Amino acid sequence: MNYTDDFPHAAQQLIDAGRFIDSKGWVPATSGNFSARLNDGTIAITVSGRHKGRLQVEDIMRIDSDGNSLDGKTPSAETLLHTQLYQRFPSVHSVLHPHSLNATLVSRVFKTEIVLENYELLKAFAGIKTHESRLVVPVFANDQDIPRLAKQVDAYLNQQSIHAYIIDGHGLYTWGNSVQETLRHLEALDFLFECELKLHGVK
Amino acid sequence: MNYTDDFPHAAQQLIDAGRFIDSKGWVPATSGNFSARLNDGTIAITVSGRHKGRLQVEDIMRIDSDGNSLDGKTPSAETLLHTQLYQRFPSVHSVLHPHSLNATLVSRVFKTEIVLENYELLKAFAGIKTHESRLVVPVFANDQDIPRLAKQVDAYLNQQSIHAYIIDGHGLYTWGNSVQETLRHLEALDFLFECELKLHGVK
Amino acid sequence: MNYTDDFPHAAQQLIDAGRFIDSKGWVPATSGNFSARLNDGTIAITVSGRHKGRLQVEDIMRIDSDGNSLDGKTPSAETLLHTQLYQRFPSVHSVLHPHSLNATLVSRVFKTEIVLENYELLKAFAGIKTHESRLVVPVFANDQDIPRLAKQVDAYLNQQSIHAYIIDGHGLYTWGNSVQETLRHLEALDFLFECELKLHGVK
Amino acid sequence: MNYTDDFPHAAQQLIDAGRFIDSKGWVPATSGNFSARLNDGTIAITVSGRHKGRLQVEDIMRIDSDGNSLDGKTPSAETLLHTQLYQRFPSVHSVLHPHSLNATLVSRVFKTEIVLENYELLKAFAGIKTHESRLVVPVFANDQDIPRLAKQVDAYLNQQSIHAYIIDGHGLYTWGNSVQETLRHLEALDFLFECELKLHGVK
Repeated sequence: MNYTDDFPHAAQQLIDAGRFIDSKGWVPATSGNFSARLNDGTIAITVSGRHKGRLQVEDIMRIDSDGNSLDGKTPSAETLLHTQLYQRFPSVHSVLHPHSLNATLVSRVFKTEIVLENYELLKAFAGIKTHESRLVVPVFANDQDIPRLAKQVDAYLNQQSIHAYIIDGHGLYTWGNSVQETLRHLEALDFLFECELKLHGVK
Repeated sequence: MNYTDDFPHAAQQLIDAGRFIDSKGWVPATSGNFSARLNDGTIAITVSGRHKGRLQVEDIMRIDSDGNSLDGKTPSAETLLHTQLYQRFPSVHSVLHPHSLNATLVSRVFKTEIVLENYELLKAFAGIKTHESRLVVPVFANDQDIPRLAKQVDAYLNQQSIHAYIIDGHGLYTWGNSVQETLRHLEALDFLFECELKLHGVK
Repeated sequence: MNYTDDFPHAAQQLIDAGRFIDSKGWVPATSGNFSARLNDGTIAITVSGRHKGRLQVEDIMRIDSDGNSLDGKTPSAETLLHTQLYQRFPSVHSVLHPHSLNATLVSRVFKTEIVLENYELLKAFAGIKTHESRLVVPVFANDQDIPRLAKQVDAYLNQQSIHAYIIDGHGLYTWGNSVQETLRHLEALDFLFECELKLHGVK
Repeated sequence: MNYTDDFPHAAQQLIDAGRFIDSKGWVPATSGNFSARLNDGTIAITVSGRHKGRLQVEDIMRIDSDGNSLDGKTPSAETLLHTQLYQRFPSVHSVLHPHSLNATLVSRVFKTEIVLENYELLKAFAGIKTHESRLVVPVFANDQDIPRLAKQVDAYLNQQSIHAYIIDGHGLYTWGNSVQETLRHLEALDFLFECELKLHGVK
């Protein structure tokens, strides 16, 4: 038996998250990938190449904490960007990587980072209690060499605590202690990115 | 028994209002809060921290006219902003506080107030009979100290009659003699905010 | 019996049109009104003050060709703008008046008229066979005195053939030989207004 | 019998594609047309003049590889633009022609071609493996003389391999080895067009 008792529930949460995220237009074509940590430390993650708004249970697979397939399916090429977050942060139980227009535009307009300040919605992030906070979301250069990209992320995380990052011309990574919390971060980030883009005259 | 005969109907109206408001994108993450006055003067209000687009009946609670919980649940931190409106205006039976992009942008672009004039849709507001009217929506500074924020609102209401106000970087408060009328105000305000933002080159 | 044999079908068409139009955001609050001519020359029209996206059969009433109520209900204050089109054009069997953001913005930006040229979608209008056509949509000043507003429209129609007109800060009137054709005109107009607004830097 | 065994499945795919495409607002009024190649080399294609978001099975017809009707129905006036792609590319099994706002705006703003570079989403196109790619989408002048328009396209295809083209003020043509792949190209193109338009200050 390849699947754990909590796999079906985690898979359904990722399927539902995908339907919600697609309804917002944040996973065009077959972009994006999603994962959730299981109780035994292995990870449920989307199979490579599927449309994330129309996932079926067979489109969710199981990998170990190093990213190796446990069921013969092929995970996303970007699996390492998920596992590095689970390895670093014991409290993280979900990672969502959509590909929204706003995240893509932020990477082109704000270049190396976007700073979000003085918004009530910052309180959507775990640990933030007042709008008088400052949330930095860094932008990393895109790279088809995922281990090299992961090293960029690691180097940054060694220096600074963040809730999310953007890959240039590509999309957003955000995480949380549950799929639900991660979706909350995602909704808040897209809203705040859109505010900043409009205030900078982009759209 | 903690609930009045009219509580279930009021709760359902707030649940339906939340689904509608979320379908417009006006309550991202767990932002926003909604309430309706009951026949006995107590108030049905959303519980703190829930997603307002997916409310269940247990996410609506009952408070007295001073904002004290009557059922052991915890209301929104901003409850006082609801109760001050019910105390001041006997005709008000609903208060809706969404968190729309347009309201947030208006607060950043128009700063202290936005003036809406010469729109047919102004007739959506109770008591307005012609487009040749002038509706002022003030913007108040955001404050995590809600009693202090409520005092700002009170001072303004002592001087001028309004249908709605915005809190900077935060969202909109509007009210009416029923949930339905308040939703009508809300739809009209968002439309008019978007008109003004676009005419000022923001989006 | 106040209703004709074809009234239920016409009423259902207006209800469905309203649901579609509201799904586009073109009838915020209780704005807009819709009508269809019946076989005996009387007219099915929306009752005043209802939300046009959630019409029930009792929200559609019947008036004679001069706008007098035939069933004791109260039609829209703008009924005369419908009846004048039915009286002037025997081929017109439906009039739709939504209140879209794009029509409102066009009135503010283009002032007296908008000219649509060199769009393939112009072929959506009855009688237009090539994109190398020129469609003028005039903008009339808003007026709460509907007979006076109707005279503006009449004077213009005496001089020029049009498919639609806008009332400043208010909304759009368009018509056709069926509800379906009128919806086709409406979809095309909103698309073309949005193109022109974006090309003029408004949104 | 006018229909092949695989016709019902192909027709259903085009109906479903139409519903999806219309949900995005890409086929206003009765614009757009869609086709899929059948196993025997004939083609399923939308009948002229129908709303592409509400297709019924009788709105899909069958033509031979030269565009002649095989069932007495009338195909789109632009059928030749479909058949020329099937004749030139044996691997092409679907052609989709929506009429999106973004494609129309691109034709007005970028004039002769739009170049898409350095986007992760370029990998949605068959054969593209890295964001460090360059995708050119040419814009052709609109022409009601479809054979003459097809000649423009042929001349271009003789010189350069492309995944899609735009007709000025009209819409987009894209194709793929299945309806599903073609929809993937379509979603990616619209996203990338919107990025480029916003970065060029259009919306």
